[in-house]
Parts: sequence; structure tokens; C-alpha cells
Amino acid sequence: MKAFVYQAVGKKALEERPKPKISAPTDAIVKIVKTTICGTDLRILKGDVPTCQPGRVLGHEGVGIIDEVGSAVAAYKAGDRVLISCISACGKCVYCRKLMYSHCTTGGWILGNTIDGTQAEFVRIPYADTSLYPILTGADEDALVMLSDILPTGFECGVLNGKIQPGGTVAIVGAGPIGLAALLTSQFYSPSEIIMIDLDSNRLDVAKRFGATDCVNSDDGKAVDKILKMTGGRGVDTVIEAVGIPATFELCEKLVAPGGRIANIGVHGVKVDLHLENLWDRNITIATRLVDASSTPMLLNLLRVGKIEPKLLITHHFPLTHILEAYETFAEAARTHALKVIIEA
Amino acid sequence: MKAFVYQAVGKKALEERPKPKISAPTDAIVKIVKTTICGTDLRILKGDVPTCQPGRVLGHEGVGIIDEVGSAVAAYKAGDRVLISCISACGKCVYCRKLMYSHCTTGGWILGNTIDGTQAEFVRIPYADTSLYPILTGADEDALVMLSDILPTGFECGVLNGKIQPGGTVAIVGAGPIGLAALLTSQFYSPSEIIMIDLDSNRLDVAKRFGATDCVNSDDGKAVDKILKMTGGRGVDTVIEAVGIPATFELCEKLVAPGGRIANIGVHGVKVDLHLENLWDRNITIATRLVDASSTPMLLNLLRVGKIEPKLLITHHFPLTHILEAYETFAEAARTHALKVIIEA
Amino acid sequence: MKAFVYQAVGKKALEERPKPKISAPTDAIVKIVKTTICGTDLRILKGDVPTCQPGRVLGHEGVGIIDEVGSAVAAYKAGDRVLISCISACGKCVYCRKLMYSHCTTGGWILGNTIDGTQAEFVRIPYADTSLYPILTGADEDALVMLSDILPTGFECGVLNGKIQPGGTVAIVGAGPIGLAALLTSQFYSPSEIIMIDLDSNRLDVAKRFGATDCVNSDDGKAVDKILKMTGGRGVDTVIEAVGIPATFELCEKLVAPGGRIANIGVHGVKVDLHLENLWDRNITIATRLVDASSTPMLLNLLRVGKIEPKLLITHHFPLTHILEAYETFAEAARTHALKVIIEA
Amino acid sequence: MKAFVYQAVGKKALEERPKPKISAPTDAIVKIVKTTICGTDLRILKGDVPTCQPGRVLGHEGVGIIDEVGSAVAAYKAGDRVLISCISACGKCVYCRKLMYSHCTTGGWILGNTIDGTQAEFVRIPYADTSLYPILTGADEDALVMLSDILPTGFECGVLNGKIQPGGTVAIVGAGPIGLAALLTSQFYSPSEIIMIDLDSNRLDVAKRFGATDCVNSDDGKAVDKILKMTGGRGVDTVIEAVGIPATFELCEKLVAPGGRIANIGVHGVKVDLHLENLWDRNITIATRLVDASSTPMLLNLLRVGKIEPKLLITHHFPLTHILEAYETFAEAARTHALKVIIEA
Repeated sequence: MKAFVYQAVGKKALEERPKPKISAPTDAIVKIVKTTICGTDLRILKGDVPTCQPGRVLGHEGVGIIDEVGSAVAAYKAGDRVLISCISACGKCVYCRKLMYSHCTTGGWILGNTIDGTQAEFVRIPYADTSLYPILTGADEDALVMLSDILPTGFECGVLNGKIQPGGTVAIVGAGPIGLAALLTSQFYSPSEIIMIDLDSNRLDVAKRFGATDCVNSDDGKAVDKILKMTGGRGVDTVIEAVGIPATFELCEKLVAPGGRIANIGVHGVKVDLHLENLWDRNITIATRLVDASSTPMLLNLLRVGKIEPKLLITHHFPLTHILEAYETFAEAARTHALKVIIEA
Repeated sequence: MKAFVYQAVGKKALEERPKPKISAPTDAIVKIVKTTICGTDLRILKGDVPTCQPGRVLGHEGVGIIDEVGSAVAAYKAGDRVLISCISACGKCVYCRKLMYSHCTTGGWILGNTIDGTQAEFVRIPYADTSLYPILTGADEDALVMLSDILPTGFECGVLNGKIQPGGTVAIVGAGPIGLAALLTSQFYSPSEIIMIDLDSNRLDVAKRFGATDCVNSDDGKAVDKILKMTGGRGVDTVIEAVGIPATFELCEKLVAPGGRIANIGVHGVKVDLHLENLWDRNITIATRLVDASSTPMLLNLLRVGKIEPKLLITHHFPLTHILEAYETFAEAARTHALKVIIEA
Repeated sequence: MKAFVYQAVGKKALEERPKPKISAPTDAIVKIVKTTICGTDLRILKGDVPTCQPGRVLGHEGVGIIDEVGSAVAAYKAGDRVLISCISACGKCVYCRKLMYSHCTTGGWILGNTIDGTQAEFVRIPYADTSLYPILTGADEDALVMLSDILPTGFECGVLNGKIQPGGTVAIVGAGPIGLAALLTSQFYSPSEIIMIDLDSNRLDVAKRFGATDCVNSDDGKAVDKILKMTGGRGVDTVIEAVGIPATFELCEKLVAPGGRIANIGVHGVKVDLHLENLWDRNITIATRLVDASSTPMLLNLLRVGKIEPKLLITHHFPLTHILEAYETFAEAARTHALKVIIEA
Repeated sequence: MKAFVYQAVGKKALEERPKPKISAPTDAIVKIVKTTICGTDLRILKGDVPTCQPGRVLGHEGVGIIDEVGSAVAAYKAGDRVLISCISACGKCVYCRKLMYSHCTTGGWILGNTIDGTQAEFVRIPYADTSLYPILTGADEDALVMLSDILPTGFECGVLNGKIQPGGTVAIVGAGPIGLAALLTSQFYSPSEIIMIDLDSNRLDVAKRFGATDCVNSDDGKAVDKILKMTGGRGVDTVIEAVGIPATFELCEKLVAPGGRIANIGVHGVKVDLHLENLWDRNITIATRLVDASSTPMLLNLLRVGKIEPKLLITHHFPLTHILEAYETFAEAARTHALKVIIEA
């Protein structure tokens, strides 16, 4: 089968690989229908994710059709259409039994990381019963691909950790795909303001269309002043970090109101300065999270009734044979205005 | 009247001052019976608390007797014995109506900071109805002084922010008075382990008597290894920072388990390094708080029925006339083994 | 001044009364601009509310202009435009300090009940600082009248007590004004379904316009079957009782899913049958509440940004001189299709 | 093997039965070491539990040794000592993924109900990986039997549902084994008062030894008056129903304070009167629950460190061959003073 492989730092290719096989009774083999590329895949290609070694088939998102199941898989059979979660959950370990699937002792984020992933014609899914979701006939599968990772991540790490409340204020630092996913799912809780902050005017225009009530371009260094002014000097109840660098995290520290929350989504490569000399008495919380994808059933419900439009995030489509072009388009988002790209296998 | 005054950086004295007067209809004048010294008072004397200017009568803790009340005070009359909260709360502003009294727009921590405090024969208490608590006849007033600040602080900033659960694990970094207050109040929630960490063996012995299940002296640089070993490599569910310097906060970052909480009590003077490169995917929260003293009624209940023994914290007694000696004893705790000192007016 | 008075069971009139006076330093006198009629007012006139005795000026909702304030009122001065909360809160008692203003030991629901109310040219408001809200210039005062009682009641007793979640299912039994208020505010939390149940097709049509996803006329006795079918046999996550009679409460018991919540808004005059023989093992909660109006600031925020349209509830306008006609219109809602009527003083 | 069988209403015997076999890959066969009798077993024998048909081996509690495991069982192997949960959980269904194991679509309370149970030499345990717990060497297995059902039930249905808080007040109606289990586990949260109510003075004496702060014998019809007096007229924050008849539930309705909770543990056979005419405006919640046994890991932790003494509940021991005598002793508790009886296989 065809599979997209991380060959070495900066080196990648669509290779011919053997079709994966069932290796545990809880496994399923899924024929990929659609997949996508995540910002994390770009970080792997740069060599920034040490758990993912060269030779790996990338990809942890997608929808597909069950090809074969192991003897202990009860919920699926060959031919079923399924959504693949980016998180594999055994359903039994101490973390799974707290719904903290991200830290499953034998699962978590392993697809396209420590085992081969979804940017291929077929993928082996461990713990199929607790890591796949059935797709209703007629569902929009482009939209569903957005429920593998980006929407649960924006929702769980940003919205839930940020404890957004009706009538509260929200600021999201970073209007890339993940910040926009947080923006879309923030609206489930009816905040009164959602302020989007970025350096790229194009992305802020997109944010406006996605429901941001205010947009602030931070390139003039005045974002803090502007936002404090907007909030009567109080700051913002929920600040979501959706970039992953020190400067943006420290911006969040300056924006958060007394009693407020900073919810971190960004993948950080280095430490940040935490200004406890200012924050120790501000009654704030800072929360981090690797997505557990425990919210996927809820998101499927809201998608079914049309209360969320994940397709807003999709800007490009490519066949699997053109995945290198898809990567290029996704990586050069400032030029291509790409958000999420769909790859059809 | 006699009053203990911060005169200049490093300069302090027991001065003669005029008795305070009612200046707003919500004020009460309280004759001090007992007060105490807080670590924050020492920081003021070093010039580290810019809101508190020379000339200030210090002290934000104590019990006393109502001397006079303003026309709008409904709950108290002259002769009533009262507990003084370290936090003044108007009861009306946006923060008070969220029970976040620490950020009361015209109150908060003002006693012995921006207005004269309790280390004197009399004190003016603003917002008396919502900043004092009635004392039942026969109550132990030494014990009650511990409910002005140190016990609500240990409980709210450490225990509540740390979301201690029955059967959970707790580590407290710093076995000074405030760490010990957190230790005492942690036990309200029946954690299975409470590990106390300090450099001073004497303080760790005290912690053992106060209910710590394990004590770790961190002077050999092996505290992290030891505690990870104690917890099967997982780390600790709730880590409480009770010192206020970068080294101890960063120790907390290394101890916290996936899904765990860091609750900061320490008063920090400088920034700390937050290792988000390790913590971004660990599903943790960090919480800061200036005590709201919203838990005081609950603590009074538990004191009444003997479920907490605040007197364990009291090591010395002095008359107000000897307050300079009291300060010296408190400041040199390593030598004197002082925890909290009671000053009788 | 003119005032609408409950004279005896079934007897009411617009009387001439003396203008109220400040009687405590925390009082304000408010000149009424607009008020409305509540279902509870009709119950008083029938003699069903024993705390409200003949001779009482009715009304607990409205907006107005401060005429005079007592010496301890800090937040308002003559000329300020204010929203009147149906709940008077001292801000100091044990219940107020839990934000349970409904049970304020000297306040709660007293306006138009145990003290004279708002259906008059002037009203005395106790605890003005904590029982009024400032109105921004240019705000729509018709809409604001809906924030005195009906919207906080629908939200707190129905939506908050029912713990509505994104993607959850909701059923509301009763499509009268209060059920519709619950319907409007349910949408703050993005449930996937909101099923409205009533006997009156006209009201169900209104519900549809207000955002109900499904409407069930229960006149054929098949509401339970239909709704169980809609929910795959599971039942409904949140069931809101908005009528106040045994039949409707017992309908809720049949609709609630395992793990679900019944939130009671209805004012009940007699006991109901609680079928614990069916419910003891269903992991459900039943919650009751008299509105605390603690959500008023949040509702004001959402009104300001246009995220709620309270004016949908207003069907009629009358001058105070025609209040008898207003009562007749409101009481005969089946004929007049009245929801809420605005009375202008 | 020997097995205790419900033969017909009122008819029971120790029969010879074939040893159970693995019937699904997720099953384990457990050799019973110790088991016990539950009040529910008595109800089955009276014919009051329609899901349990004659011919059934009873029992849903116990500890044992793994005899054999199915091919998909990962956590256990022959020879492992295990605690058996009264609740079987597949770990995969919609309810299991909400930690609501009691409503597992293919599990829940099935042992000794719809499949053969633990009062036998061997038992088949479905979903072994998620329905058994490992026992540490040297653990007290008598104490552990109390963690199969009675302690998680008292804790989850009574204490968690009753949201007991430090410094809060608790009343428990019914001092039988399950009421006493609630009493023991209530203390995890340090309430200031725990008032025990029963008609049997002996049981109240036991309750006093188990930590009740007050005991009220309700045989004089004055329990409500006495308890209201004890609580300054306010009523009780958390009222736990541990009997299961209308009179005791209605007693709870009279005891609950404004803002309080009624937590139902009792198994009810008939409806009760819910006096909503008194309770609609009292801001209370009523919660029901079939134990999920999701708290078992936490209880195991607290048992390990000695923070709970389940053996207080054990009054008698019998060999399996004398199980009829054990049933008689347990059924006639008023005479025998039996709480829980241990049966050794």
C-alpha cells in the first residue's frame, strides 16, 4: 500500500509499504477514506518530536472503513464506516478509568508517533472498541475528519480547561487552525466577547467570519493595552494560548483577569517565564492538557444537529498520491491561506 | 494608644498613637485582645511590599471587643467579642458578589497594609458586618487568632486550590507556619499520603506530629527521586508550594502527577521558570490565590466541634509591650523554633 | 401616587396611596418607569400565597429611576436608571454569603409580597446597593424588565439546576412564559435537542420560533412514548418542570434518562408522587429553587451584546392606568396569546 | 461445587452445582475465598426483585483467587488474589465511558441477579479486567469484602450524592449496615455534625462508636423537632436515606435545610410523597443512585493506609457449609445484632 513516511529530519516520501496486520485481539485494520495533516506532523518532520523516529508512517486523524477486526473487537465489523480518534485508549488502565485517555498507559497519542499512522491506504488501530466511533450513513466525512483531533483539542484544552461561562470574556492568542477550533467551540458556552489575537490580518479576517467579536493584530505591541481597555481594565476571564512559544504565553499572563483562567493548547518546546511576582495573588489558574478525545461523542452529537460547522476549517483537498503537495500547502499557510487540508486515499 | 509602627525599611517601634475613630457608617472600632505576626509583616519591614508605606501600624490578624460601631453596622454592638478577618469585604462589589473578597474593589487586604492594622490597642475595621465574625462565649481566643489569616490561607490557597480528594496524594513544599496550616487543613479531605518537604529537620519533626505521613529533607537534592519512588513513579496529585521562591516552585513542577494540581501559597518576589516543554501535555493545573477568607465560617464550625487544633501552631506568647521581642523571636524561627506568636494587648 | 392593590381574595384595584419613604439607611425610593405582571401575582389574587396579605401593593419586577437614597446607599444617586431585582438581598447574612439570595434572612422575595411592590408610581427598595442594577444609557428598558424575574428564574431554576451541557438533550414541560424563558436561556449551553411539551398548540408554535428543536402536544397521552422514541429509548438528560402540578412533575419522572436531572421551576400547591420504586437506581437528581437572581449580571452582559432577545416574551403594552385590563389580558392567555405584558407608569 | 441457590420465594438451599466455565474471552473464573450476604439477597428470597429468577446462585460480593481467565483478559492470571466488584463493567459502552458502571448496557448489577453469583465455591466474572481489583499481599481480606458493595454504596449514593463538605451537617436516617457504611465514609469529608436516626437503640449505640456525633431515636415521633433544634432551626445540609420506605424518605424531606441535599440509598418498593408544596422554593436537591463502584480504587487506597476500618462492620463468621445459619443470623439482626457476616468458602 501507499504510505507517507518520515524518513529523516527534513526528509519525507510516499513509500510502498506492506498492509498492516492484526497484532492483538483488540486491533482493527481500517481502510483510510480521508485523512489530514496536523501541525504536529510538521514538527515531527523537523525532528522536534523525539518519540517519533524515522521510518514512521505519519498521521493520527481520519475516517475509514473497517477492513478486519481482532477476535476481541465487539463494536465493529468489516464494512463499518468509522471515525478514528487521535488518541488510543485501552479503556482499562488507571488513566482511562479517569477518562484521561491521553495518558493511557499503553495508548494515548501513539498513532503516527510510536506506531504507524493514518496517512496511508490502511492503518492498524489498537483498542478499536474504545478508539473508533461509528459514522452514521450520510454523514459528511470531510467534517468528521475535523473530529479526530483538532476540534476535541480546541474544545478540551481550550474551552473546557478555560471554563468558559455564558456572559464571560474570552481571548484566544493565535488564529491558526487550532485557535480557530477553540473559537468555534467556545461558542457552545455563549461568552459575551471572544477576542482573537494574531499577527496575520488574513487569519484575523477568518476569525471574524468564525464568530470572533473582536480581533486584535498584535504586531504593534499594543495588544495588552487594547484588550485591557476593551475589558474596563479588568482583563479577560478565559485566555487561550494557541501558539506554543514564550512570547504568546506571557501575553496570556498579562491578559488574564483576577479570578480568570489561562488554558494552554500550544505545544511548547522551551520553558516560559511565569511572572508569579504579579500573579501569586490574582486567583488565577493555568491548565495544560493533551487532548483526551473524551468529548468526541458530544461533538458528534452537535455535528449531527448542525450546531457546529467543522467544514469552515477545510481549505484544500488532495488525493493521497499528491500528499507532498498537501504538506507544502499546509506548511506555507501564510502564503496559501491553508487551514486544514483533506487528503483522500 | 500603643501601636506597632513600620517607620522605615528595617526600622520599627512601639509608638503612642491616637485611638482610631469611625470614619464611615460601616466601620467598627475594635479593642484588640490578641493579635499575632505574619510572615508578610517581616516582608513589609524589609521594604518588599510597596503598597505599605512607612508610618503604617502593622497587623492584619486578631480577636477583640467591639468598642464602637458606625450607624450602618447591623450585626455588632459595643461589648461583642469578634474575630477580625485579614480581608475587608464590602459585600457589594463585583468581586465580593463572586465570594472573591480578596479583590474587593475598596477592601481586600488593606489592614496593616494601606490602612492601620491590629498590632495596637485599637483598630478601625471597615465593612464591619462583612469583615468580622462573632465569637461564642468560652471559645479559645488563642486558637481563634489562627483563623484571621493563616488557616484560611492554608486551606483556600493550598487545600481548595489543590482540590485534595479522599485517597489522593499530597506533597507540601515548605514546613513553615503556612505549610503546616495547609497540612492541618489538608486532613479535612482524608488524602492517603501527605508528604512534607523542607530543609529544616526540626520543622519536619513538627510536621510529623501534625499528621504528615512522610517527611523528606530536600537538602541532598534527591527529594524528587525519593517522592517519585514513593508514588510508584507517578508523582503527586496535589503539590502545595508554601515557600515563594523559584527553586521550590520548580520542585513542585517536577513532583506533580499527570492530571495533578500545583497550588501556590508562597508570596513570590520574582518570576519562576515554568517548564511547559515538559508540562504542556501533562493535564495539570496551577492555581494562585490571595486568601478570600470565605472559608472562615466553615473553619469556625470545625473549631467549635474540635475537628481542628489551631493551637498546635502557637509556640510563644508576649504582651503588646514586648512586641519587639515577639518580632525577633518570630523572625529567627530557625533558632527559636517559633511558629506563631500570640501578642496580648 | 397610583398603586395596584390586592384588596381581598378576588378583589383588586388601582388605588391612591402615599408615596413610600426611606425607612432604613440602605433603602432607595425608585420611580417606576416600566413594570410587568407575574404568574405569581395571579396566585396572590386567588388567595394562594399566604405570606401576601390584603392591602398589599403587588409587583416585583420593573425598571425605574432613583428618586432618593438612604444614607448608607453607595452605588446609586437620584436620577440613576436602575433594574429592580425581584429578590432583595442584604449581602451580609449566611445565605447571602453563599449567593443564595432567595433565602436572605431579612430579604428574599419580599417585594409585592410582604412589603409593597412595583406596580405603582414609586416603590421602596430595601438593600438598594445589592438589589438594584445600573442601566446603561440607551438600553432597551422593555427587554430589561424581563431580567427582574422571568429570565433569571428560567435560567437558574431550569437551566443551571438542570445542568444543561453542550450536546445534551433537554425537555421542557410547559410552554408558558416561564417555560419559554427556560427555552431561551437553555440555548446558552448548546444542547443538541430541546423538546417542548404543552397542551396548547399556539404556545408550541411560539416555542418553535424561540428555538425548540421539537414540540410535543401532550393532549393525546402519548408524550412519554414519543419522547422516548426520539431519544433512542434512553430518555432525556435534562427535564425542566415549568407548570407546577402533579401530572406534569410525574411526566418529568417518566422522561428523565439514567444519570439525568429534573429541574423544577413550577410553584406547587400540593404534594406529588415520587416514584422512587422506579427511580432509586436511575442515578438521577431532582432540584428545586427559588430564584436567587445571582445570574442577573451575567444576563445583563448577554443582553448588552445581543446574545439573548428577551423582547420575544413581550406581547402587550398598557399604561399603569389600564393595569386592570393588563391583568385581564395576562390572565386569559389562552385567548389573548399573552406572554408578558409591559405596564408603563 | 457447593452453591447457595434461590429456589423459589422463601425457599433456598446449598446445592451441588457444576463449576462455571469461561463463556466469553473477557471472563474470569474466580475461586471464592470469602463472601458475604447483602440486604438485597433477603429481598430476592422474598420475591421482591423480579430480575432475579428462581434457580439463581446468589451473592455479589467477595474476594477470591483467579482460577482461569479468558483469552482477552490482560490484567489477571491464575493464582492472583482479587476483590470482586458487585458491578460488572464492560468499560466500553456509553454509560461505562461516563463512569456510570451501574448502567453498563451489558453489565451493571448482574452477579447473583441475572447471572450466578459469589455465594459458591467458584464464580464466573464477566469483564474481568474492569470488574476485579488486585489484592496486595498481606491485605486483610475480611475488610476487603466490605469493598465489594457496602462501602462504595454508602460512599457513592450517600456521601458523594449528598455532597458532604468540611464543617457541614449530616443526618443519616437508618443505622443498619448501609447507614453505618455511609457514616464511616462521611467522615472522609470532616463534617462538623453527623446525626444518626433509628428506632433501635442498639444500632444507635453502634453508630456512636462509629463516629456519630449525635444519635436520635425516632420512636417518639419527635426526631424532626429535636434535629431542627440541634441545627438552630435551619435543618441539615446533607440528609441520607438509608432505609427505603416512605416514612423515612418523608422524614428526610422535613430535615433538609434550604440549599441542602437528600441522598437516597434505600431500595424503595413503592412511591413516596414528595412535598413540593414545601420544597419547591427551598433550593434543595434529591439524588438517587445505584452504586457504580467507581470509587473502589480510592477506597482501596484509604484501606491500605488505615484511614478506614471496614472490619467494624463485621460481626459474624461462618463457613460456606453453614450459609443457611449465616442467612438466619443476618436476617434476624435485631436479635443477633448482626451487621455483616463473613462466609468462608
